[in-house]
Amino acid sequence: MFLERSLRRVVVAVMRELSGPIPVNIGGGRSYNIHLVPLARLDSLLREVRLQRGPCVVVTDANVAGRWLPQLAEALDGWDPSVIVLPAGEQTKSHASVRSVYDKVLAQGIDRQTPVIAFGGGVIGDLAGFAAATLLRGLPLVHVPTSLIAQVDSAIGGKTGINHAAGKNLIGSFYQPRLVCTDTSILDTLPSLEWASGLAEVVKHALIADTQLLAYLERSWHKVQSREPATVRTMVGWAAAVKAAIVAEDEKEQGRRAILNFGHTFGHAIERVAGYGAYTHGEAVALGMRAALSLSARLHKHFDMDRAMSLVCQIPVRYPLSSQPVSVDALMDAMRYDKKASRGALRLVALRAVGQAYVTDQVTRDALLAAWAAAYH
Amino acid sequence: MFLERSLRRVVVAVMRELSGPIPVNIGGGRSYNIHLVPLARLDSLLREVRLQRGPCVVVTDANVAGRWLPQLAEALDGWDPSVIVLPAGEQTKSHASVRSVYDKVLAQGIDRQTPVIAFGGGVIGDLAGFAAATLLRGLPLVHVPTSLIAQVDSAIGGKTGINHAAGKNLIGSFYQPRLVCTDTSILDTLPSLEWASGLAEVVKHALIADTQLLAYLERSWHKVQSREPATVRTMVGWAAAVKAAIVAEDEKEQGRRAILNFGHTFGHAIERVAGYGAYTHGEAVALGMRAALSLSARLHKHFDMDRAMSLVCQIPVRYPLSSQPVSVDALMDAMRYDKKASRGALRLVALRAVGQAYVTDQVTRDALLAAWAAAYH
Repeated sequence: MFLERSLRRVVVAVMRELSGPIPVNIGGGRSYNIHLVPLARLDSLLREVRLQRGPCVVVTDANVAGRWLPQLAEALDGWDPSVIVLPAGEQTKSHASVRSVYDKVLAQGIDRQTPVIAFGGGVIGDLAGFAAATLLRGLPLVHVPTSLIAQVDSAIGGKTGINHAAGKNLIGSFYQPRLVCTDTSILDTLPSLEWASGLAEVVKHALIADTQLLAYLERSWHKVQSREPATVRTMVGWAAAVKAAIVAEDEKEQGRRAILNFGHTFGHAIERVAGYGAYTHGEAVALGMRAALSLSARLHKHFDMDRAMSLVCQIPVRYPLSSQPVSVDALMDAMRYDKKASRGALRLVALRAVGQAYVTDQVTRDALLAAWAAAYH
Repeated sequence: MFLERSLRRVVVAVMRELSGPIPVNIGGGRSYNIHLVPLARLDSLLREVRLQRGPCVVVTDANVAGRWLPQLAEALDGWDPSVIVLPAGEQTKSHASVRSVYDKVLAQGIDRQTPVIAFGGGVIGDLAGFAAATLLRGLPLVHVPTSLIAQVDSAIGGKTGINHAAGKNLIGSFYQPRLVCTDTSILDTLPSLEWASGLAEVVKHALIADTQLLAYLERSWHKVQSREPATVRTMVGWAAAVKAAIVAEDEKEQGRRAILNFGHTFGHAIERVAGYGAYTHGEAVALGMRAALSLSARLHKHFDMDRAMSLVCQIPVRYPLSSQPVSVDALMDAMRYDKKASRGALRLVALRAVGQAYVTDQVTRDALLAAWAAAYH
């Protein structure tokens, strides 16, 4: 009873805080804010960070443009935007797309003050971020994330990049935006697969670092599922704040930030073995978290796996692993690939308790096999 | 007499200081040192910055590889280097070269600790720097500059980049190396055109920020021309220290660092109009500095142009502008292009006195015409 009330008080406090921006305190002059505001506020946010009205570049994809470009154009009244519309989908994170952005941007009259606005989900954010990082040695980058995964995860923390034949995200840089403008009402039109994909990252943020967010999700799950506007706004702001706090501690992923990979090493193996595209990234992470929770329970006798697993299993996944022609041996092999790629031992993120993640390279083959078995159910 | 003695004391002090590394104090954990040491010291320098022996990537060009690769390989005894040899010349600063570096590096087993060693002049430094900045969101970069221009200028300050059809250096990033290993004995084999090109930057550093370096160059010019080893070492260390001090004040070229463009706006116009390759960059800068000095004299009545011009005119230039089919009108047009590219007024670097550069956008057309006329002699 007391716990409930104290949690509610925290939630209320967080919701109150969310009326202001969420700071991402990177340091070195690269700090910025995440603003949970209607898209219409974009112009004033740009000017708050001393970007002067004039030319700007909007990078977006065909899906987002089809539904939301008029609203963005209205929000950029007074600006002179050049809009680059790319095909939706992971294949857009390519050298060819970056080259086409370079060509189009450089054909305009731009200078180092010309903002690049990434208007889309994770793919657009990563791609436009990389283009901004590498044009004229760095143009001001503004994220306007339109997917749940982008709003709570990929638009925060400065990771930019594209894929290479040798693997995903192998080309890229750390490049912080000047601001993030997050309008949660855009999520109303998000396809359910993408919504579920984002939920996997929200649940992950709660599991690794914030028991109160976890409790909020447990209590509000039906409102989350129905995308009740106030609940979505609270959830997005809260999850974004968790991500912001973690990346602020470790801008370049040299330590703490690695806990954000909870469920991801397993998930990457699933994506690799099932074939990219068979699962969404979020589905693979949701399945990967099942394995990671099982591993955590094996490593820590008092770990409350049932509570965590109960929420993870509510993240919609179209098909269980057991319905796929994916063997544990193949998954183990795929993890060895990850290990080879990182010179040395396989590093995994485990939980010693809900909200307390850490990185370990002390995982036996037996423990891995058992963890994978758990993911199959 | 007193002045002479005091100058000599400063030179002696600088030479003494040069027995230690030259710090580039960027801040934000990105500071590094320039070491004026024999190439053979490279392995110990790498380990001093906590890079552990293992795989490393060497990017170089055919000219440098032909003459110095055995010495580098010896200096990397205990390492496992993959060597990427690119064609020498400006055309190597291309998307295609970066792609080939990506492909070759990613075909190896690398991780975020794998150093990229840029072993060459400005082209290799810019290209390998850009590849390092964008592989796995940043590999440790080590500059081993082999040209005078790289040792005193391009390897210091974190500018990386490649050319685009729309212009030079339009794609790139600011990315600081972990260390710079400068062996001035490598300059013994530098072709005379490249030597002269580097001298233009040395003289520029002296003119914009260090009258004592200027005096040293005046006194030692015949030893500079004959590449007397101790003089070369002093000159390189001194000029590198000037560059380091300027970039440390302004990592991302938002203010002070712009003075490094002294003579360059004029020089870029010359390169553009004469056709890239007609002059070396250094020759164009040397001619551009003649114009910039004339402009400075017009803006500041007490400016000692004769002293500055006397040294600038000793930088070897194969043909005077007057021998080229290059009209002042065409040069003025080329400068307007620069102006258009930077939204607003043409910004030029002038000297109010020797050693005191500043940026101005208050230059009349008449003053520009007169400045160009001076460059023709």
